[in-house]
Amino acid sequence: MTTPAAQKKPMAKRMEDIQPFYVMDLLARARQMEAAGQSIVHLEIGEPDFATPQPVLDAGLSALQHQLMHYTPALGLIELRQSIADYYQSRFGVHVPYERIIVTPGASGALQLALAVLVDPGKQVLMADPGYPCNRHFVRLFEGVHSSVPVDSDTGYQLTARHIAQHWNENTIAAMLASPSNPTGTLVNKNEMAAIAEQVMQRHGSLLVDEIYQGLVYDAVEYTALELTDQAFVINSFSKYFGMTGWRLGWLVVPDGYVDAVDKLAQNIFLAASTVSQHAALAAFTPETQAILRQRRDEFQVRRDYLLPALRNLGFNIPLTPQGAFYIYADCSRFTDDSYLFVQRILCEAGLAVTPGIDFGRHRAMQHVRFAYTRPVEVLEQAVQRLSEFLKNA
Amino acid sequence: MTTPAAQKKPMAKRMEDIQPFYVMDLLARARQMEAAGQSIVHLEIGEPDFATPQPVLDAGLSALQHQLMHYTPALGLIELRQSIADYYQSRFGVHVPYERIIVTPGASGALQLALAVLVDPGKQVLMADPGYPCNRHFVRLFEGVHSSVPVDSDTGYQLTARHIAQHWNENTIAAMLASPSNPTGTLVNKNEMAAIAEQVMQRHGSLLVDEIYQGLVYDAVEYTALELTDQAFVINSFSKYFGMTGWRLGWLVVPDGYVDAVDKLAQNIFLAASTVSQHAALAAFTPETQAILRQRRDEFQVRRDYLLPALRNLGFNIPLTPQGAFYIYADCSRFTDDSYLFVQRILCEAGLAVTPGIDFGRHRAMQHVRFAYTRPVEVLEQAVQRLSEFLKNA
Repeated sequence: MTTPAAQKKPMAKRMEDIQPFYVMDLLARARQMEAAGQSIVHLEIGEPDFATPQPVLDAGLSALQHQLMHYTPALGLIELRQSIADYYQSRFGVHVPYERIIVTPGASGALQLALAVLVDPGKQVLMADPGYPCNRHFVRLFEGVHSSVPVDSDTGYQLTARHIAQHWNENTIAAMLASPSNPTGTLVNKNEMAAIAEQVMQRHGSLLVDEIYQGLVYDAVEYTALELTDQAFVINSFSKYFGMTGWRLGWLVVPDGYVDAVDKLAQNIFLAASTVSQHAALAAFTPETQAILRQRRDEFQVRRDYLLPALRNLGFNIPLTPQGAFYIYADCSRFTDDSYLFVQRILCEAGLAVTPGIDFGRHRAMQHVRFAYTRPVEVLEQAVQRLSEFLKNA
Repeated sequence: MTTPAAQKKPMAKRMEDIQPFYVMDLLARARQMEAAGQSIVHLEIGEPDFATPQPVLDAGLSALQHQLMHYTPALGLIELRQSIADYYQSRFGVHVPYERIIVTPGASGALQLALAVLVDPGKQVLMADPGYPCNRHFVRLFEGVHSSVPVDSDTGYQLTARHIAQHWNENTIAAMLASPSNPTGTLVNKNEMAAIAEQVMQRHGSLLVDEIYQGLVYDAVEYTALELTDQAFVINSFSKYFGMTGWRLGWLVVPDGYVDAVDKLAQNIFLAASTVSQHAALAAFTPETQAILRQRRDEFQVRRDYLLPALRNLGFNIPLTPQGAFYIYADCSRFTDDSYLFVQRILCEAGLAVTPGIDFGRHRAMQHVRFAYTRPVEVLEQAVQRLSEFLKNA
C-alpha cells in the first residue's frame, strides 16, 4: 500500500500557523558550504560554546556509573527541586517552597506545561513581538491565540504595564514576558515587572515570566519575578547559564493550586525529565560550579563589549545596550529592507551566519538581524572583519 | 501579592478530562508504608528492573567524556536514525529510509508529535479501551476527542478491522493500536493489522501503531506494521526492550510528506532529544547489546510462565495468554466489583502493589487489575504467596 506522493496528506490546521526556524535553512546551506571547504563563522547559534562545567559533567558520569537510569517522579527528583529552592533563597533572598518547583525536559517542557494548563481554545496570550517564536507556537498548539504586541526600543523591546492595560481584552488570559529577552537581550525593569504583575492580577489573568537567561546579566542588578509575586509561572533552564543545552533540563515554578494539575500533565506528556541530567544538575549549584559560571558570564560580557560598538561602527543601529543573554538585535535598515535576503547574502558572500529577524516575529522583522556572541572574541573579530568587507562591497 | 488559596485558579477546561495515574496515589501510600518499615512487593511498575545494558551505558559514559553535550538536530543524530533504519532492515527485512525516522524524547515525544500534527479540535481518534491512558490524554491535549472502543478477550483486547468499520464516522481521522498492548500484553495478529490498515486507508485516515514493547514478544513471530504499509505512524521507544527508561528516548516513523511538519513541531516543542542518550543508543543495536536483550527477553518469558498459571490458580480469570510486554491483565471479578478498592486492600493488608484497571480506561475497569512482571521470579513467588493469604482471609 503506497500512496502517491501527490495525494494531500491529512494534517491538522495548526500546522499552517507553526513556522520552522528560518535559520535552519540557512544552517543547512552553511553546512553545505563547509562541506565544500568554505570557512563559516557562526553567530547564529543560541547556545553557549562552553562545555558543561566539569563538576556537573562529573556528577553525570557518577550517576551513570551508579546505574541511576530508571524513571524519576514526574515532578523531578526532590533533592533537585530543593536545590533550586535553595538557589532562589541564597541568590535572591526569596522563599520558594520546592513543592512549587517542577523539573522539566528543558525550558520547552516548562513552557508546554504552563500553557497546556492555562490555554483554552480561542483564548489569548499577550506577548512581545519580537520574541521567542516557540511561545506563540505553544499557544497555537493548544488552540489558543497569540496576541503579539509590537515593541520597540522605547520600551526596551519589552511589554509594559501600559501595554497590558491597552491590549487586554475579554479573551485574554495571560501575559508572557522574557527577561532577559531573546532576541533583544534586554531586561524588564523590576518596578515595571511589579506594575505588570499588578495589572495582570487585577484582571485575574496569569503571568508567565521566562527567566532562562537568568545569570547572564551585565551591568544590572538581577532579580526574579518570584520576588515580586508568588502568583507567576516562572520558566527557567539549565541550558544557557548552566551550560547544559544537550542535557535537556529546565524547570517551572507554579503558583499554589497548580501543582496537581501540572503533575498529571507531566505524567502524561513526558513522564519525567532525563534521570542522568537531573543527577548531573545537582552539582550545578555548588560554589565550585557557580565560580565557573560567573567567569563565563564575565567572558560573555567581554564579548558583548567588543561586538556591540563594532556593529555600531559598521552602521547597524542598536539604540539600547543589551544587558543580558548573549544576543544583539541589530537594526540593519541602513543596508536593506529585507533582512532575510540580507542574511543569505552575508552567508554566501562573507561566510558569516546570523539569524534573520523573521525568526522572532513580524514587527520590523525585515529590518533586523540577531547576532549571538556565543563565540570567542577572536572569532567575533573575524566576523566583524568579514562583515565590514561585505558592507564595503555591497 | 498573595492570592487566598480559596480563590479559584484559572485553568484550561482540558484539565478536567486529563486524569492522573491512579497508581501514583497507591505508590505514595506504598512509600509511606515502606518508610514505616513494612515490606512491599512492587508489581505495579511498568519499567524493567534490569539496568541499561553495559555497552549502552559505556557509550553514554564515553559520549560525556568526549563532551558531547550540545544540541543535536531536532530530528535526531543522523547516525542514530540510520541505525534504527538498519535495525528495521536486519530484523524485519523492511526498508525504512532514515529520513522518515525521527528521534524523540521518549515514546511520549513521538506520540505527541504524531497527534499534534494530525488532530484538529473535535476530531476523533479510535482506540481500544483498555489501553495506555496517555493516548486519550494526548488527543484531549490537542482538543480532539478519543473514541474509545470497548474491547474484550474475544478480539485479544485489540481493535479489529470490523471495529474500524463500525466505529469510524465523519469526524474520525485516525486509529491507534498498540502491539503488544499495555495493559493486556496481547498482540494484533499480522493479518488483522493488514486489514485494519486497509480499512483506515480506504477512509483516508491515519494509522498510529505503538510498538514500544517490540522485542518483548513470546511464542509468536514478530512483525512491524511497517512491513504492511509505509503509511503508518509507528511509535517506538528505547525504554522497554532496550532498558533505557530514565534516558528518555524513543522514535517516530512517519509516512512520506510529514517529515517537514514533524521537524518544525519538534523544533518548537522540545528542540531535540537528550544528546548523551542519543549517543548511548548508538550502542543499542550492536550484536553484544542485542544478545543481552534477548537474554532478558527470555527471563521475562520465564517470569510470565511462572506468574500466569499462579494467578489463574488463585482464581483470577485470564482468558488469553499474553504474548508480549511484561503485563498480565487479570479479571478479578471473582473477588470484587471494585478493583480500585481491591488494590488498596491488597497493598495495605498484603503489602503488594498492583495497578487498578481504572488507569487504563472505563470498560470493565473495576473488574480488572494489571500485574507487571518486572521483578525476578523469587519476588513473584513472594507476591503470589502474599496474594494467596490475602484471598484466603478476604
